Formats: sequence, structure tokens, C-alpha cells
Amino acid sequence: MVTLKSITNDIGLEYEGDGNIEIIKVCGLEKLSEGGIGFITNISSVPALEEIYDTSKELTDQINIDKVIMIQPKGLDTPFKNRIISDDPLVTHVQIAEMLNPPVYRSGKIHETATIGENTIIGDGVTIDPKAVIYDGVSIGEGSVIRAGVIVMNDAKIGKNCILYPNVVVRDSCFIGDNVAIHPNSVIGGDGHGYYQRDGKNHKIPQVGRVIIEDDVEIGSCSTVDRGRLEDTIIKKGTKIDNHVQVAHNVEIGEQSLISGHSAIGGSTKIGNNLIMAGFSAISDNRKIGNNVIISGAACVAGNLKDGSFVGGTPARPFKKWKKSVAYIGNLSSLFKKVNKIEKSVEELKKLK
Amino acid sequence: MVTLKSITNDIGLEYEGDGNIEIIKVCGLEKLSEGGIGFITNISSVPALEEIYDTSKELTDQINIDKVIMIQPKGLDTPFKNRIISDDPLVTHVQIAEMLNPPVYRSGKIHETATIGENTIIGDGVTIDPKAVIYDGVSIGEGSVIRAGVIVMNDAKIGKNCILYPNVVVRDSCFIGDNVAIHPNSVIGGDGHGYYQRDGKNHKIPQVGRVIIEDDVEIGSCSTVDRGRLEDTIIKKGTKIDNHVQVAHNVEIGEQSLISGHSAIGGSTKIGNNLIMAGFSAISDNRKIGNNVIISGAACVAGNLKDGSFVGGTPARPFKKWKKSVAYIGNLSSLFKKVNKIEKSVEELKKLK
Amino acid sequence: MVTLKSITNDIGLEYEGDGNIEIIKVCGLEKLSEGGIGFITNISSVPALEEIYDTSKELTDQINIDKVIMIQPKGLDTPFKNRIISDDPLVTHVQIAEMLNPPVYRSGKIHETATIGENTIIGDGVTIDPKAVIYDGVSIGEGSVIRAGVIVMNDAKIGKNCILYPNVVVRDSCFIGDNVAIHPNSVIGGDGHGYYQRDGKNHKIPQVGRVIIEDDVEIGSCSTVDRGRLEDTIIKKGTKIDNHVQVAHNVEIGEQSLISGHSAIGGSTKIGNNLIMAGFSAISDNRKIGNNVIISGAACVAGNLKDGSFVGGTPARPFKKWKKSVAYIGNLSSLFKKVNKIEKSVEELKKLK
Repeated sequence: MVTLKSITNDIGLEYEGDGNIEIIKVCGLEKLSEGGIGFITNISSVPALEEIYDTSKELTDQINIDKVIMIQPKGLDTPFKNRIISDDPLVTHVQIAEMLNPPVYRSGKIHETATIGENTIIGDGVTIDPKAVIYDGVSIGEGSVIRAGVIVMNDAKIGKNCILYPNVVVRDSCFIGDNVAIHPNSVIGGDGHGYYQRDGKNHKIPQVGRVIIEDDVEIGSCSTVDRGRLEDTIIKKGTKIDNHVQVAHNVEIGEQSLISGHSAIGGSTKIGNNLIMAGFSAISDNRKIGNNVIISGAACVAGNLKDGSFVGGTPARPFKKWKKSVAYIGNLSSLFKKVNKIEKSVEELKKLK
Repeated sequence: MVTLKSITNDIGLEYEGDGNIEIIKVCGLEKLSEGGIGFITNISSVPALEEIYDTSKELTDQINIDKVIMIQPKGLDTPFKNRIISDDPLVTHVQIAEMLNPPVYRSGKIHETATIGENTIIGDGVTIDPKAVIYDGVSIGEGSVIRAGVIVMNDAKIGKNCILYPNVVVRDSCFIGDNVAIHPNSVIGGDGHGYYQRDGKNHKIPQVGRVIIEDDVEIGSCSTVDRGRLEDTIIKKGTKIDNHVQVAHNVEIGEQSLISGHSAIGGSTKIGNNLIMAGFSAISDNRKIGNNVIISGAACVAGNLKDGSFVGGTPARPFKKWKKSVAYIGNLSSLFKKVNKIEKSVEELKKLK
Repeated sequence: MVTLKSITNDIGLEYEGDGNIEIIKVCGLEKLSEGGIGFITNISSVPALEEIYDTSKELTDQINIDKVIMIQPKGLDTPFKNRIISDDPLVTHVQIAEMLNPPVYRSGKIHETATIGENTIIGDGVTIDPKAVIYDGVSIGEGSVIRAGVIVMNDAKIGKNCILYPNVVVRDSCFIGDNVAIHPNSVIGGDGHGYYQRDGKNHKIPQVGRVIIEDDVEIGSCSTVDRGRLEDTIIKKGTKIDNHVQVAHNVEIGEQSLISGHSAIGGSTKIGNNLIMAGFSAISDNRKIGNNVIISGAACVAGNLKDGSFVGGTPARPFKKWKKSVAYIGNLSSLFKKVNKIEKSVEELKKLK
């Protein structure tokens, strides 16, 4: 049994309240439950809390607040008497979420129905689940987990402690670093969209580059990273990519970037570190994007962007200018009317001349 | 042989014309064929019909209209003499389409190359096709069909009479109700895109919620529904989702909604019943969307929406206002010119002062 | 060893410089390497070249330019002494890329772990990799390659010399021509998004058409082509489709079209030949699009388009008009100010009356 006392002992923090209370699950402020542990970073950031406890009789009737555990900074006044005191409640909550929830299951075995090609190098403790297919010449670093239905094609290299979720495809010769997670049905190293036209017909340009995915990268479900045409497509350290994202051929994405769902980056675009792309956004092909750029939701970037740019709209412009444009557009009706009125006044004035 | 007589007998409707004519296939008005059965709901809704028969000599030359069967309301004047009389021709057409086309093939057997984990509960008459992988602890309700290459991970629950098309992935602990269809390569329960930054690095927030998919839901191909961060992502009864749709973590979608292709719903957004999202549209994260909302194609919703809202554009606004804005924008050229002309007139008037 | 002499001999072109120099890899101008072979189409199209060699000391220091091979038109003045003289350097470069890089690996065998149904017709020299599942009644033309995890369902027909990359799904009765390539995790023939509402509930409309994919078509990763509702969805000869593209039910796309990533075509839309759809663009359902149409990036087409249309924006308008609108919108701030200023002047003039 995990108790308030035992868990604070494990993570080296102090608690207040009933140390023997059992901690069952992590939860959020909007759905507290008995035995649940939530977190508050600071009182001003949590209007939600007051809202719930002032307005939702139903909730407070359903749960006994004295059986809730709250992670909060020292000295914060909240209705919870069972507390873990933390300087960084979010991080403490994540830490406890990991303790309460079983980690990725690793049998450390190669299932008998997996197909392993020739000349492969499979590291110690690698888990390969049923129906995975490892083509010839592949290497997989120690501790990595290959889920059912994953296909790794010839000569690809997977680093240590990676997890490839079911039905992920890694095509030939691609390189994946350590601690990389790729979620189901994503494709690494598919051919880029490269054609030339002669005599009215489309002809294929061979895509002979690879994909390089550096350490600590995470890629969502149903996303694609195309192999380079001549050189490699590169996703650098610590970058996290959501679902349905397209990274086209020859793209380079810098370190520690965050790319939300349904976004697309056009071919040969080079991007610096710490990019933030909100959902449903896009960057054209052959662009240069600096460091620390923020692209707001549904924005489509048509030009290059300098370090620190923050843009919105389609085609994307500086965010503040775009927001103003949106307001102006909303007022066009009154502008047209006003201009017509002025026009009439001017006509009348002219007559008076 | 299915004849006009036999089929109307089976479905309990009346016919006119040649009862012995064979019905071979369902077809639409734009491609009628001999032995084909089409439908007309009312004469005004079918300008297509007159258009085809006035303009397309080719078609009327190719087919003998007397071998076509038409489902139509009573008393409607059309050139077709073989008719099924129906108060609801669309529904009758669907009914006959189902009769003429073989239902999903169900062997009712587990193929010898499927992998079934431990402690699974497989209902009566479940079909599991080759190379499917059912992890430990999974339950599958009676009559469900699991196609080739489907992966159902630990402790997931699939209801009765579901069909999971090839290479669908259902991750651990997700819950799927009865009569649910999921089309190829879609992913239920992938991790949500949740990270926090410390010391300039992105760190993962565990995604410990599930996905709950209620009865009668259908999900298209290559779509993703992410598991919740703390609580569950929920798609309610009767909702139908198209291809390439992203439903991010913690989202709730109400009953009987229709979400068209390439749409995306941001994390933690809560949506009422009967949502209609046209294609290529999006809703930001953390929004509240009421019941009976319509989002037009390519619209991106940035704010909350009340019951009955009908919006368009990016950022989305009331549909009529957006349409007017589009017209105003189209007239900006003349507005700029007009203003310049007025400006000149005013300057001249000033000189005359 | 491939040398400048041997390769020009093979392809029937002339060279200048050191015939014995080894050719190791194809590369681009921006990343020349020793033993690398690049191409220049004409000097004006390659400001990149001068830029690199004037500005990037680092690069010229790293490589010995005399070990680079360049494909270029006759008489072009470049710093490279090892040259292949070609009237069409791009095509020559593609040709050499294919020679230097191994073609698709074809064992010509059916792997023992593949599942082959009954009544299938498998042509000579067909390669079927591990864990592929071929349902009953399927035919596969000679020389085709079916990669691991591919699922081809009942009665589908695959032509000659096709390649289906891992985890592609081809649903029942679909028809795929010769020389077709489909990249990983794409879905051909999933059900279209067709429902009708009765009594407040969504009901499914059976999708009984097929998908027809003609010769020489290529489809990227994670793309979907839905089967027709009544008739067939058709993609004609030589059309090339990128990743994450949705082709909805009943669509027809003409020959030799190019459709970039993350684009979507709504149901029943009929498109002529030589369409170019840039990335992140869309066409509504039930539209008619002529031949030789260009849709720019992120444009969403709401209406029909005549032959030769070139459009941009959402809703899409003639490209030049759209570009002007964008400029006008960028100047709305000054327009609003100007109008207010004029209004004041007019008010003052009125007082003077």
C-alpha cells in the first residue's frame, strides 16, 4: 500500500496531514477523488479550484475532501489537509504518476513469432513482441522495446532504451538515437515526394538519404518523417512531435522543439532550436527558421523567420499584427459603411462649392 | 436471382413495372446501369436527373432505361417505369445496398497465426484474422471481428459486434463499446502530447488515462484518439469520425456527432452532442463547445462556442459574419481606391475653404 | 569501382577531367563531398553555388573540389574539372542515383511466415515479405513486392511491378494497376464517411464501390483513399500523392497530378489532369475541377475551378487577387487611420459650410 508517509519518504519530501492515508491514483483538480493526489502550483493559477468548490455541490458531496492528497508549495492556503510540500508541484506530481503507474512492460525477450533477419545485432534485454519483423542488418540497442507489428527495415539502427509502439515502420538505413519513443503507426524514412516532369509525365527522383533521429526525441501516432533526397532528414535532441505531423524530406529540426498535432513542415526547411509549433500549423518548403520561434495554431508560414519570431495567420505575420488584422477584418462592415457615408458628405460638399 | 418482385416482398414495399426484372447492383442517378437500382427523394432535389437525360445522349444511348429500377416516393413523375414506392427512398436504398452486398465476412474462428495472450476473454463467435496480436488481459465481446494485423494491448476491452479493420492499434486499458467500427491503421489510446520544460529541456508527462469509446461509434482510417493524461478521453454514443482526425488527450465528444476528414480537436476540449465538423477544421485546446454546433470546412475555432453556434473562418466567427467578411475582403481593392479618391476630393475642398 | 569513365560509358555520355576518379555517392550543391557527384542545370539557377564557394571557407577547406564530379551542360563555366556533359543534368543525376543505390530488394520468394489465402493468383517473381497477409481471391502481378505487414483483403487485384511498403492496407475488391508504389501505413479502400440521420441518430450508408488506382501512381505514407459509395474512387495514370493525404469517396483525380502533403479532397469531387496541389491545401466535396489547375499551399477550394485556374487563400480565389488581398489586409491599419482622418476633415468642412 502506497501511503502519504511512504511516498514522501521515497521522494524525499515532507507531508502534512494523515500519513497513513492511502494514495490510489493521480488526478487533476477538476476530478478529485478519494485516494487521489492532485497538485496546485500557486493559488492564482488555480481559479479552477475555487470554482469547483464554490459552484459544484455535486462534487464536494461525492467526495470526502479529507481523503484527497494535494501537492502544493509551502504555506499555500487550500482546503486540503493532506499535503505534500513541494517547490515544484508539477514535477512532484509527474514523479508520483510514474511511481503509481506501471512502467512500459519489458519482457526482455524476443517473442517466438517475431521474425529476425540475418546479421542483426540485438542488445541485452531487448524486448521484441509478437509479429514484429526485423529485416537483415538491423541493430537494436540494449533495453529497447519493439512492440507487436513493428517493422524495422534493412540496416536501420535503433539506439538504447527506445520504445517503438505497435505497427511503427522504420525504413532502411535510418538511424534512431537513445531514449526515443515512437507511437503507433508512425513511419520513419518513407520516400520524400520528389518528382520531375518530362514529356508531360511525372518521374520519380530516388530518395537516397536517411532519417536521423537524435536522443530523447518522441514522435506521436500516425506521423511521418521522410528520408532525405540526397542527404539526411534530421530531428535533433529532445524534440517532441505530436500525431499526424509531416516532416518532409531534407528537413532539419533543432533541439528541444515542440510540434503539435496535424502540423506539417515542407521539404528542405531548416529550423533552429526550441521551435514551438501549435496545432494545425505549417511551414513551406525551403525555408530557414531561426531559434526560439513560436508559430501559433493554424498559422502557415510562407517566408523565412528570424530568431525569436512569434507569428500567426496565413500567410503568417508577426503575431500582434495578425491579431490586429483579425480585429480590423471584423470591423470592415462598419468601415465600408463609414466610407460610403463620408463619400456622400463629400459629394454634398462639392455641390456647395 | 434478386428481382424487383422478390426484393419488395422482402422489405415489405410495393412496386410498379416489371416484377421479374433482375436487380444486380445499387447505383446513383449519375451512373445508372441496366439492372441497377437508384433512388430519387423528390423531384426538386434532383436537377441531376434532368441534366443527365437532357444533356448526355451518350448515357441514354448506352443504357436501356426500362431495365433500370428506381426507388421513389408515390406519385412522382419520372421516366422510370420500374419503381419501388417508398416514403423514405434513401433508407430503402441503403436497405437494398446491404441486401445486395455481402456483409462483413466473419469466420467466427481464431486464425492459427493470431497471437492470443494470457488471461484473455474471447466471446462466442469472435473472428480473429491472421497475424492479429491480442496482448494479455484483453476481452473481446461476442461477434466482434478483429482483422489481420490488428494489435490490442494489455487489458483493453472491446465490446460486442465490433469490427477492427487491419492494422488498427488499441493501446492498453482502453474501453470500446458495442457495434463500434474502426477503419485501418487508426490508433486508439496513443500517448497525448504532454510535456513540461525544466532547464531548457522537454520532459514527458505520463499519460495514465484511458480512451472510452461508446456504442455505435465509427472511426475512419489513419485517425488517432489519444489517451487522457489523468482522466479518460471520451467519444460518446453514435459519433462518426472520418479519416486523419486527431482527438487529443482529455477531449470529450458528445453523442451523434459527425466529424469530417483531416479535422483536429485540441487537448481537454469538451464538446456537446450533435457536433458537425466539416472537413479540414479544428478546435483549439481547452475549449467548451455546446450542443448542436456546426463548424464549417477549414474553420479553426479559437474560443468557446454556445449551443447552436454555426461558425466559419480562422479564427472562427459566426458563419454569416464570416461570409460577409470574405465578401468585404474581396472588395478591399475598390475600397482603397475609393478612399484615395475621397481623400483627393477632400484635399481639393480644403483648398477652396 | 564506379569511375567517371565507367559510368559515362554506361550511360552514353561524355566526360571531362580525370576518368579514373571514383564516384561514391550522389550529392547536392550544398553538400558536395569527395567522390560525390552533383548537378548544375544552368548557371543562373544556381546562385547557391557561388554563395557556397564565395562565403563558406569551411566547406572549401573541408573538401578537395578536384575530387568532386559535376554533371553540367556543355560549355558552362564552373570550378569543377571533373564533369559529365549532359543536356539534361537533372535526369542524368537521377539515372546515376539509381545506378549507385541498390534497387528495391526483391527476393522473388514468399516468406514462410506470410499468410496466403485461398484462390489467390501470385505472379512470377513476386516477393512477399514476412507477416504479410493475402486474403482469399487476391491476385498479384508478376514482379510485385509486398513488404512485411502488408494486408491485402479479399478479391483485391495488384498489378505488375508494384511495391507495397510495410503495413499498407488494401481493402477488398480494390484494383491497383502496374508500377504502383504505396508507402508505409497508407490505406486503400477504407469506407467513405457516409451517414444519414433519422430520429436524431447517425446511420451508416454502405460503401460498396471500389478504389481504382491506375498505372504509375505513387502514394505516400499514412495517406488514405476511400472506396466509393456506389461507384469507384479513381486515381488516374502517373499521379503522385504525398503523405497524410485524404482522397474521399467517389473522387476522381486525373492523370499526372501532383498532390503534396496534408492535403484533402472532399467526397465526389471530380478533377481533371495535371492538377498541382501544394501542401496543406483542400478541395470541398462535390466540386468540379478542370485540367491544369494549380492550388497554392494552404488554400482551401470551396467552388468549381475551370481549366488552368491558379488559386490561393481560403476560400480560394485567383492567386493574384488573393495576393493583393493579403497586401490590402496588411494595410488595413493605415486605411482605418486614413478614413478617420478624412472623416474629421469632412466634419470640419461641414462646419464651414
